[in-house]
Amino acid sequence: MQKIKLGILGYGNLGRGVELAIAQNDDMELVGVFSRRKPENVKTALAGTKVYPLDTMNDFVGKIDVMILCGGSATDLPKQTPECISKFNCIDSFDTHAKIPEHFAAVDAAAKQAGTVGIISVGWDPGMFSLNRLYGNALLPQGKDYTFWGKGVSQGHSDAIRRVEGVADGKQYTVPVTDALDAVRAGKNPDLTTRQKHTRECFVVAKPGADLARIENEIKTMPNYFADYDTTVHFISQEELDRDHAGIPHGGFVLRSGATGVNGETAHVIEYGIKLGSNPEFTASVLVAYARAAARLVAHGGKGAYTVFDIPPAWLSPKSGAELRAELL
Amino acid sequence: MQKIKLGILGYGNLGRGVELAIAQNDDMELVGVFSRRKPENVKTALAGTKVYPLDTMNDFVGKIDVMILCGGSATDLPKQTPECISKFNCIDSFDTHAKIPEHFAAVDAAAKQAGTVGIISVGWDPGMFSLNRLYGNALLPQGKDYTFWGKGVSQGHSDAIRRVEGVADGKQYTVPVTDALDAVRAGKNPDLTTRQKHTRECFVVAKPGADLARIENEIKTMPNYFADYDTTVHFISQEELDRDHAGIPHGGFVLRSGATGVNGETAHVIEYGIKLGSNPEFTASVLVAYARAAARLVAHGGKGAYTVFDIPPAWLSPKSGAELRAELL
Repeated sequence: MQKIKLGILGYGNLGRGVELAIAQNDDMELVGVFSRRKPENVKTALAGTKVYPLDTMNDFVGKIDVMILCGGSATDLPKQTPECISKFNCIDSFDTHAKIPEHFAAVDAAAKQAGTVGIISVGWDPGMFSLNRLYGNALLPQGKDYTFWGKGVSQGHSDAIRRVEGVADGKQYTVPVTDALDAVRAGKNPDLTTRQKHTRECFVVAKPGADLARIENEIKTMPNYFADYDTTVHFISQEELDRDHAGIPHGGFVLRSGATGVNGETAHVIEYGIKLGSNPEFTASVLVAYARAAARLVAHGGKGAYTVFDIPPAWLSPKSGAELRAELL
Repeated sequence: MQKIKLGILGYGNLGRGVELAIAQNDDMELVGVFSRRKPENVKTALAGTKVYPLDTMNDFVGKIDVMILCGGSATDLPKQTPECISKFNCIDSFDTHAKIPEHFAAVDAAAKQAGTVGIISVGWDPGMFSLNRLYGNALLPQGKDYTFWGKGVSQGHSDAIRRVEGVADGKQYTVPVTDALDAVRAGKNPDLTTRQKHTRECFVVAKPGADLARIENEIKTMPNYFADYDTTVHFISQEELDRDHAGIPHGGFVLRSGATGVNGETAHVIEYGIKLGSNPEFTASVLVAYARAAARLVAHGGKGAYTVFDIPPAWLSPKSGAELRAELL
């Protein structure tokens, strides 16, 4: 069997996760990592991984079936995916929900011109959570959607804490409110405010002599990030932060609560939940499964931009249709 | 917009559920129910529903886009689906897992000859649970699968109880073992025996003067059905059974526990769970969503047999790709 040849564009936590996820799949091989940094400055997770300068990427046209883009959604992907897709089939994890239609249009136009395929916004939200919202809505058209995130580290909120004067380091966890989650699970269909759904827990290392009360107040009242939430601030030492908060766990829940029957008298609840030891490693695993689907999409004559909504689930698996029906159906 | 025209073949609990589910979807219309019984003996859930004799079905060729088969898997569907598909696009909920490959082959051959499409084994298990096993395996290739059923009514086990001498009526609930479920959720990857995963709870109405101890013993030691489980038997009155156990609730959980990282050091758990007020009404809702997908499949030139694994999730929804990306991605 011909292995699927993959490339990684960008090597941070996500690129590292993709490198590791590819190694778990026998039908794939990693051709190389492309980085802005000098190859000798990139320390890969696995010994055999090749690293190439970004500007050599075009030499690999025809040698890579699917490029997996591992840059950020704020500035990298809006430029990188439409550019890269003029040469390669691409997968990205673009996750700025409000800008997905715009990004889709840009990637679709470039891909159709080049005759390539791109699957955008792959990961868990957008991604697996979106799929579960879609399935839930289709199966229970009379119902209500709920998405809870956490417990997990929010990179954006952690960055916001670290910008507060007097803060040396910090980490923020988004935590779903158990009572709210339980009410949804019980089919009570509550209307929930932002504050009722999630709390925010901050672990902060203050600089020597800093005014802790002011830091706490500045965090708790920060617009957009914390003001609409019940926020707890714990001051800890750098040693404690490094020891107890080094990971990047995340997770969450998508629920669909709906009714059937002659008068909506029958209640149903569908729940999809994930508990992730590492947010980037799981996102990477999703990207890699969809890279396989992208290769199938090419084989089926696909062209343009796609999302997880467009991909037949069977294409994510290395198994044949007959194997899947016999083993997993 | 042209509505999708649907037919229902077979009118029991499932057919009734399909009738109700179609009424929840504005892009569909129910042409009629086809039944072995005389139309005047079929009492439909909704006033406007038309009922036709089974042998008039062929008069509807070209007037029904998709026929939804609501017969049983033991004797009805193995004959009905391959027959019906020679005239109509079909959806069924064939759920004898071991015989799916055989049923698929029969439906596929007949559909390819007729130029129609069939989506088989649609529901929740097989169906939504299968999809979640597939997604879980594809995303976390190094991992373990767990499926728990319940708490819910098992028709087969309830029938088995009622065949015991001295039993007037009875109902059986399959109950997942909380400790086992919690161990899986905690990422402990336990190896679980049949007995460790589920218990069976029986509510039995004994005939007057029957030997209760013998009935209880016969149930608990019944091979295949109860002998491999911890079973509880409650004797209650017919009034209590009718009052407290009239519903057909069900549900369950599909979990995938897996590891990523350089040495599998990062643990992840994915869980899909459903709590259904009515097993047949939910199964019906799944069938109806896949009937929409079957209509799309026809529009895309599909021919032959398919399963939930082959269907792009977007096809289940009445919304356009642009709407789905803007609202649910």
